[in-house]
Amino acid sequence: MIHSNVLTDLAVTSPSKIVLLVIDGLGGVPLSSNGPTELETAKTPHLDAFAQRSICGMMDPLAPGITPGSGPAHLALFGYDPFKYSVGRGVLAALGIGFELQHSDVAVRINFASIDEKGIISDRRAGRISTSTNNELCQLLQNVELQKVQFFIRPVKEHRAVAIFRGEGLSGKLLDSDPQRVGLPPKKVVPIAEEERNPETQRTATVVNEFIEQAEGILRDQESVNFILLRGFDQYKPLPSMQERYKLEAAAIAVYPMYRGVARLVGMDVLNTGETFNDELITLRQNLEEHSFFFVHFKKTDAAGEDGDFQRKVQAIEEVDRNLPDLIEVEPDVLIITGDHSTPALLKAHSWHPVPFMLHSKYCRPDSVMQFSERECAHGSLGRFPALHVMPLAMANALKLQKYGA
Amino acid sequence: MIHSNVLTDLAVTSPSKIVLLVIDGLGGVPLSSNGPTELETAKTPHLDAFAQRSICGMMDPLAPGITPGSGPAHLALFGYDPFKYSVGRGVLAALGIGFELQHSDVAVRINFASIDEKGIISDRRAGRISTSTNNELCQLLQNVELQKVQFFIRPVKEHRAVAIFRGEGLSGKLLDSDPQRVGLPPKKVVPIAEEERNPETQRTATVVNEFIEQAEGILRDQESVNFILLRGFDQYKPLPSMQERYKLEAAAIAVYPMYRGVARLVGMDVLNTGETFNDELITLRQNLEEHSFFFVHFKKTDAAGEDGDFQRKVQAIEEVDRNLPDLIEVEPDVLIITGDHSTPALLKAHSWHPVPFMLHSKYCRPDSVMQFSERECAHGSLGRFPALHVMPLAMANALKLQKYGA
Repeated sequence: MIHSNVLTDLAVTSPSKIVLLVIDGLGGVPLSSNGPTELETAKTPHLDAFAQRSICGMMDPLAPGITPGSGPAHLALFGYDPFKYSVGRGVLAALGIGFELQHSDVAVRINFASIDEKGIISDRRAGRISTSTNNELCQLLQNVELQKVQFFIRPVKEHRAVAIFRGEGLSGKLLDSDPQRVGLPPKKVVPIAEEERNPETQRTATVVNEFIEQAEGILRDQESVNFILLRGFDQYKPLPSMQERYKLEAAAIAVYPMYRGVARLVGMDVLNTGETFNDELITLRQNLEEHSFFFVHFKKTDAAGEDGDFQRKVQAIEEVDRNLPDLIEVEPDVLIITGDHSTPALLKAHSWHPVPFMLHSKYCRPDSVMQFSERECAHGSLGRFPALHVMPLAMANALKLQKYGA
Repeated sequence: MIHSNVLTDLAVTSPSKIVLLVIDGLGGVPLSSNGPTELETAKTPHLDAFAQRSICGMMDPLAPGITPGSGPAHLALFGYDPFKYSVGRGVLAALGIGFELQHSDVAVRINFASIDEKGIISDRRAGRISTSTNNELCQLLQNVELQKVQFFIRPVKEHRAVAIFRGEGLSGKLLDSDPQRVGLPPKKVVPIAEEERNPETQRTATVVNEFIEQAEGILRDQESVNFILLRGFDQYKPLPSMQERYKLEAAAIAVYPMYRGVARLVGMDVLNTGETFNDELITLRQNLEEHSFFFVHFKKTDAAGEDGDFQRKVQAIEEVDRNLPDLIEVEPDVLIITGDHSTPALLKAHSWHPVPFMLHSKYCRPDSVMQFSERECAHGSLGRFPALHVMPLAMANALKLQKYGA
């Protein structure tokens, strides 16, 4: 694998435009051995026609056999080694709601939960309370006061919120308080094993436990929600930006908070956009001049896959296909269409399977793939390759990389 | 390449079963440019039908162009980087006959040989003596006495035996006494170049040369066998077990000692079995409940290849094919069929060629490969990949790996 420094040394700025369309959870699996996948079932005349003038292949999101979370999968697509750069759930959640994290902030996800009179968890989601109840609870909990530590709590959605601790000498190396099962008491927050003797981590644990205690007091009078569970502690350290690494003016067009968050992590401008794919494409057209790289995210495929809804995933893919002419009309110098990972309806979850990939540019050297599908892309000229190859390939096709050596 | 620690962190135990069938030396080469390989010649209706519901590819045993020995080839299949973990022939041979090696034992392979009156080797195998003669000779040589070092000698088969030296401060970094050619005298055992000044290695060389001298005295009265040649010194250090690495209850079903040995090295339970492939499959069925991973080894293909017997290799492959329905009937959640390396009859030896590979599971995403062969598997959706990818892929398809990151 090429070292990212080499890429930085070779990168040059130029007016050419790269668009990376990520169809979330694109890859699928047949429902029966000889059947078609979701993508093979979908009627995709525009994607297929585009495949015919692209170079295609199958991309491994992280590594063969490894199922990625959304964070690592996107980091890899953006060229950041996911085994080197990790992002915890807490930081992803805070970034995802647009909270402006500062360097060294410790963030953690919160579930509003129910415990019984014996202190045993009876519902890890407090009956999936509404987002507006969540809002009110967060306002109450914002009254918590901690010594020498600034504290923020923000609603995410339904029973999920995020807390941020800001101050000198904090650490994110803490274990969850959430035992991940009902019928157990919540745990005290403690440092991870390697950090047991680290005073900063010990102090952070004390601060967090103090927060939990105060929160318990505040929630005591609430009906079903009378406790909070914490998981996914992480400390925010921005990654080297795509500007620094690739000399790209990168922008993100994504509807969902999580993807906006991970884009912000690598220094992308996160553009305001609407709720639909069509809205996203309008945003792309309107902002085309100001940036040289666009990450466009389409979520519905993944959501349908997670729900195990094969047919809805097929329809989501067909929605992309219907809108594709509008994207092609923008005429980016490099247009890449792929997924961040597979989410087969059969598995109702992210999976390890490689993802169909196609790249078109004036210089792409098209292969003989006639259809954008798992089986066909496996015969593409790019072969099978890791997601970390995507950025060098995109930059090269945009003529944004100089020659290496004389 | 993903670090094995990542895999260990993601591994979960589950009742699903993985079977890895290794057809030793499976890959072949045509006898003439446009001819078929051994596998392409064989009538394999069951393997072909299975390929049609599997995902296929071509596996590089170690790395492109590198011909593997049996030890490294199997270690790689089991997910142990063969360039990091090495196992000498001596240790493999001792493990293979079921000798219970202890940590730091030094083991070496022995050939019973013949030298003439001038001390020149006339036959490196002493006319391939029978195993029963070998037995008697080992009993005689067990009378050797060495200072402060325990010594064991055990017959393997025909002219091959294994010697084990046990004691404090021994080293396995010694060169062979076997010059690998007749017409030369045997060499004195000396440390490898880097260890020339290491007192432990020097002392071990002295001990081993003392053994050779005493053995010569004991064998003097024998008819054709009057000398021993030593090769493949190695010191035994058990590897992290498959249980530790993958949380798998791994079992080996293999007839030949060498493969039983390498399985034991990675902590597999080595099951008692009969002499035929059919016996092995019966053993599999009988032990299915107790383990989650089965390595099943079939030897005849390699033996025929080594003998340069194209037709016998074809027949051996057909024997696997005939028995395949019995294996499929076991219904493992993941069934992988491949080889450890190629042994083309044309070369009469192991070779560097990649090996046909297929994996079936409910989630395998079958490709369009219609026949289990070198040419067809090269068009499989797995593409070309190193053997180190096999375990992550097997674990993923058995749903034994958690998601990486959020």
